[in-house]
Amino acid sequence: MKRAADVSVRALDLAGTALFAAEGASLAIAAGLDVLGVLVIAFSTALVGGLVRDVLIGSVPPRAIADWKYPVTAFTAGALTFVSYAYLPHPSHMVVVVLDAAGLALFAVAGADKALDYRIPAFSAILMGGITAVGGGVMRDVLLNQVPNVLKSDIYATAALLGAAVTVAGRRANFAPFAVTAAGFLACFVLRVVAAWQHWNLPALTR
Amino acid sequence: MKRAADVSVRALDLAGTALFAAEGASLAIAAGLDVLGVLVIAFSTALVGGLVRDVLIGSVPPRAIADWKYPVTAFTAGALTFVSYAYLPHPSHMVVVVLDAAGLALFAVAGADKALDYRIPAFSAILMGGITAVGGGVMRDVLLNQVPNVLKSDIYATAALLGAAVTVAGRRANFAPFAVTAAGFLACFVLRVVAAWQHWNLPALTR
Amino acid sequence: MKRAADVSVRALDLAGTALFAAEGASLAIAAGLDVLGVLVIAFSTALVGGLVRDVLIGSVPPRAIADWKYPVTAFTAGALTFVSYAYLPHPSHMVVVVLDAAGLALFAVAGADKALDYRIPAFSAILMGGITAVGGGVMRDVLLNQVPNVLKSDIYATAALLGAAVTVAGRRANFAPFAVTAAGFLACFVLRVVAAWQHWNLPALTR
Repeated sequence: MKRAADVSVRALDLAGTALFAAEGASLAIAAGLDVLGVLVIAFSTALVGGLVRDVLIGSVPPRAIADWKYPVTAFTAGALTFVSYAYLPHPSHMVVVVLDAAGLALFAVAGADKALDYRIPAFSAILMGGITAVGGGVMRDVLLNQVPNVLKSDIYATAALLGAAVTVAGRRANFAPFAVTAAGFLACFVLRVVAAWQHWNLPALTR
Repeated sequence: MKRAADVSVRALDLAGTALFAAEGASLAIAAGLDVLGVLVIAFSTALVGGLVRDVLIGSVPPRAIADWKYPVTAFTAGALTFVSYAYLPHPSHMVVVVLDAAGLALFAVAGADKALDYRIPAFSAILMGGITAVGGGVMRDVLLNQVPNVLKSDIYATAALLGAAVTVAGRRANFAPFAVTAAGFLACFVLRVVAAWQHWNLPALTR
Repeated sequence: MKRAADVSVRALDLAGTALFAAEGASLAIAAGLDVLGVLVIAFSTALVGGLVRDVLIGSVPPRAIADWKYPVTAFTAGALTFVSYAYLPHPSHMVVVVLDAAGLALFAVAGADKALDYRIPAFSAILMGGITAVGGGVMRDVLLNQVPNVLKSDIYATAALLGAAVTVAGRRANFAPFAVTAAGFLACFVLRVVAAWQHWNLPALTR
C-alpha cells in the first residue's frame, strides 16, 4: 500500500515538474531567450521552489539535485516546449489555468507535508507549502527582470497557502493521509480556478 | 542573569523584525501590491537577511522558520501596516531613519554575534552581520524590480559593517558581552543617523 | 604530489576569484554604484556561484565564508579595480573575453569536481559546475536590475556545462585526475573563446 502510494506521489510530482517547466519555457521563449536560457528558466520555474524549501528545512542536498529524475524531467519538458513551440497550437488560456492550478495544488500540499515531516512548526510549514508552490515562478520572474507576477496578481499564492493550511490542519487533526492530501489539493485547486474564472482579486490600497 | 539577557535580546530582535516588516509593507503598498504581496514583502524585508545568514553558517532550519514567533511577528506587522496605512499619519522622514537605524544596528550586531558562535572566521562574521542587516532590504528591492537601494545610496551597509566589525573586534578582545553589544550597536546607529542627517555619501566614479 | 597539486588548485581558484571580482567591479562602476556597492557586486560576481553550489551539495559553511582568503581576495580585487579604474587603460575586449573564459572554465571544472566529491549524481554534478561558473554573474545582473546576460547572450553557460560534462565523464571513466581537469578546462575555454570570436549564438525562436 505505502509503496504504491509513494510511486503515485512520485509520478504526480514529476508531472507537476514537467508542467511548470513547460510553462516557464513558454514564457522564456516569448521573452526571446535562446535555447539554453529557455532550459534555465524551465528548470527554475519547476524546481527552485522545492529547492529553497529543502535548503530551509535542512533536507540537503535537495531532492531536485539528489534525484536526477527531477532535473532531467524539467529539461526534457523545456526542450520539448522549445522544439514544438512554433508547430503545435498553443493551449487556450483556461486550459493553462486549470493545469497550472493542478501543479500549484500538488506542490503546495507536498511542500507542507515534507516540512511537517522535518518537524517544522505548523505556521512555518504552511509557508513552506507556499514557497514550494510559487517559489519557482518568483525566480522565473526575477530572472526575466519583472516584478513577480504572484506579488501583484490575483488569488494565486493565496490558494497555495490555503491548500498548505488545510494539509497542516488535517495532519494535526490526525485525519487519514489520503483524505488530508485530497482536501488540501482540492482547497487550493478549486479556489485558484474559481478565482481565475471569476476574476477575483485581493484588495490593494493604491493602483 | 543569562536568562534575563536572553529574554531582552529576543524582545529586541522581535521589535526589529516588526519594524523592518512595517517598513517593507509601506514600500509594497506604495508600489501597488495587493495584501498578500504586501505580506510577502514584509516577511522578506524583516527575515530574509537572517535566513540567508542561518543557511550560510549552517544553522538549519533558520530561526525565522524554526521559531514561529518570527514569521507571525512579521506578518502581523505587515497586516497592521496595510490596515492602518490609509488612516494613520505617516511618520516623518527622520523618525523613520532613526527607527530604521536602530533595527539595522540590532541586526548587524546580532548577525555577527551568531556567526562567531558558529565559528565563522572574523572577516566572514563581519560580512554575516552586514548580510543579516541589509539582506532583507536587498530581497525586497529585487522583488520590487529595483536596483537595491543599499547598492547605490548613502552610508547604510557601511554602518552595518562597522557595527559588525566592532562586535567582532570586541569579542576577539574578550570585552564583556554587554559592552561589546552596546559598542557595536552604537557604532552602527550613530554612523547611520549622522550620515543620513548630514547627507554623507560614499564616493562613486561615474554618476 | 597531492599537496603540491592542492596548492596550485587553490592558487588558480583564487586567481579566478580575483578575475571575476574585477570584472564585476568594472560593471558596477560603469553602473554608477558607490564604492561599497562596487565591493558587494565584486563579491557577488566572484563568490555567489560557489556559495550556492556549496549550500546545495551540503558543504556548509560554504568555502567562500569558511575560508577568509576568498572574501578578502574578492574585496581586494574589487577595491583595486575601483581605485585604478580612472587611471589605468581598460583591457581590450578580446583580452577580457580570454581571461573571463579562463575563469569560467576553472570554476566549471572545480564546481563539477566538488559536487562529485559530495556524491551528487552525474547529471546534477554537471549542473553544479554550470551554477558555480555562471551563478555569480547571474546574481550580479539581478542586483544591477538587468536580465542576466547569460540567459540571452551567446555561448557562455553552454561552454561551462560542456566543461563540467567532460569533467564528470572523465571521472566516471577513471581517467587520471590531471588529464580530466585539463580536458574539462580546455573544452570550456576553447568553446567559449571560439564562440566569442566567431559570434556563434544559440538558436532562439523570437527576437
